[in-house]
Amino acid sequence: MKLASLKSGRDGRLVVVSRDLTRAVEASSIAPTLQSALDCWSTASAELTLLYEQLNTGEVAASFAFDPAHCDAPLPRAYHWADGSAYVTHVELVRKARGAELPGSFWSDPLIYMGASDAFLGAMDDVPIENESWGIDFEAEVIVITDDVPAGISPEQASRHIQLVGLVNDVSLRNLIPGELAKQFGFYQSKPWTSFSPVVVTPDELGEAWDGSKLHLPLRATLNGNLVGAPNAGVDMTFDFCRLISHCAKSRDLMTGTVVGSGTVSNVGNQHGSCCLAEIRCLETISGGEPTTPFMSFGDRIEIEMLDQHGQSVFGKIDQRIAQYTPAAD
Amino acid sequence: MKLASLKSGRDGRLVVVSRDLTRAVEASSIAPTLQSALDCWSTASAELTLLYEQLNTGEVAASFAFDPAHCDAPLPRAYHWADGSAYVTHVELVRKARGAELPGSFWSDPLIYMGASDAFLGAMDDVPIENESWGIDFEAEVIVITDDVPAGISPEQASRHIQLVGLVNDVSLRNLIPGELAKQFGFYQSKPWTSFSPVVVTPDELGEAWDGSKLHLPLRATLNGNLVGAPNAGVDMTFDFCRLISHCAKSRDLMTGTVVGSGTVSNVGNQHGSCCLAEIRCLETISGGEPTTPFMSFGDRIEIEMLDQHGQSVFGKIDQRIAQYTPAAD
Repeated sequence: MKLASLKSGRDGRLVVVSRDLTRAVEASSIAPTLQSALDCWSTASAELTLLYEQLNTGEVAASFAFDPAHCDAPLPRAYHWADGSAYVTHVELVRKARGAELPGSFWSDPLIYMGASDAFLGAMDDVPIENESWGIDFEAEVIVITDDVPAGISPEQASRHIQLVGLVNDVSLRNLIPGELAKQFGFYQSKPWTSFSPVVVTPDELGEAWDGSKLHLPLRATLNGNLVGAPNAGVDMTFDFCRLISHCAKSRDLMTGTVVGSGTVSNVGNQHGSCCLAEIRCLETISGGEPTTPFMSFGDRIEIEMLDQHGQSVFGKIDQRIAQYTPAAD
Repeated sequence: MKLASLKSGRDGRLVVVSRDLTRAVEASSIAPTLQSALDCWSTASAELTLLYEQLNTGEVAASFAFDPAHCDAPLPRAYHWADGSAYVTHVELVRKARGAELPGSFWSDPLIYMGASDAFLGAMDDVPIENESWGIDFEAEVIVITDDVPAGISPEQASRHIQLVGLVNDVSLRNLIPGELAKQFGFYQSKPWTSFSPVVVTPDELGEAWDGSKLHLPLRATLNGNLVGAPNAGVDMTFDFCRLISHCAKSRDLMTGTVVGSGTVSNVGNQHGSCCLAEIRCLETISGGEPTTPFMSFGDRIEIEMLDQHGQSVFGKIDQRIAQYTPAAD
């Protein structure tokens, strides 16, 4: 099934969306919000699935046209956002561009940081940033949302805890990253916002493209109308989602609604382009000595989407612009 | 006023607690949970304050004995947990013990990491840990909880966004930290659980001990019945809470219910002991070449409390034991 949250208060209003993303129906009689559905997922998911089937066959009288412009993030605020760097080829490239060696452990021990989850952006929301000089970049990623995961779970056990799959734009402020990484405490100011695809879907929607731990489809990133990348998310993913979840749960439980991200999708050789500007700039640095592609400017538009084998959009499209933010005067 | 959440479902049940921590009254007619109260704080806080005044003067018929054993964390799950290392003297000591220099910027640029907020522990909950060899430690800290904070706020503006103050035990797995810090992505597996004082209080409860940005009272940490530290939280706090909030909000808004922590309270010279074992072990290493105090073992008891100038407990006591956790078999 496909689920979305329409903008309404702090947590949105849960709707079920048709497979072709054209129609939606209120799900409030089952659960008012996606988090409340996840809180009792075993019962809510069965009822939501039934409503989804009725919506797809046209049996729901109260359905309405689905408009991504009215979407908040599926979880407008969440309790846990763990973002990996699962495509180690991306990390290797970034290091190579600055002449640094990749520690061998990076191929066996997942890199994960804790991201800000208290205010996710909707698919068509502007991204408010104060300063262009911070080096504004997008990162196109795949995410999964779990139910309750017990501490110490193995990767083999983790797959059944993946309840929903979606896309994000993990907005990154590249020029703030070196200072924060040098302090070793992880990203904070350099990872301000994360934007979500209009809908999240249950793994069964993905058919053979979902193997239980990876999503085998190209992830398309389009900047100001130009396709800049379409690497396959199922290729060169060093740590699949089950490995990432197991890593996150090594020393504690994960609560239902935990969002786990893949990090920037990236394929060895970059023949299908890149899912962030940093990677393009690294390739330019390696080949020509310096980057020629600038970071994003105010007004720039980024679109992120995944099409299935029939060319149909799976999650709807992240389609947003960078907007200048001005803090209130003292 | 003083507020607590009794154990009930995923978000607890909000109660107002009397100033002397002996009585409580349900606040569900005002807001069912603390997060729901924070979501409409300007109206809810006025109603809760009125109920608090009535409770203190004995005008509430439906009050009952307050029992910290029934307390969940005031926010059993939260959307944002930003933990600082505001007492730089602590960071300096840790570095000195391992022969590393402290970067000069650490005195002017706050260290903050994003912590796991999806499952906080109650004041008397056991702390479940799988493996003693991970190096189990406590960290006694002061925290504040904010309302909505706009991006780009100055430290001067930040004080009025501090709505509640409390204590935490930021459980740390010391032997997992070096590997995680070396990866530069921050703490993840090494910071599994955070336990909260039974109650959180509004700043006006703290009288002259609260100066708008710091709490000037000793924080007492007692391990297996022995007082190991009582440094003053208002002394040697390099970055006060207003600086920490301003740092957190540099590039994005903070949503209501954001928890901001001080990091381990520590005073220069450590004449009043330490609020974590790592610091004690560092002092031993500096004076004797190696640490002699072990990390915590299963069954060890840690108590964390703050007394006011009259010897009364302000927040109630964190009083918990380390418990061995065994993951379910595959």
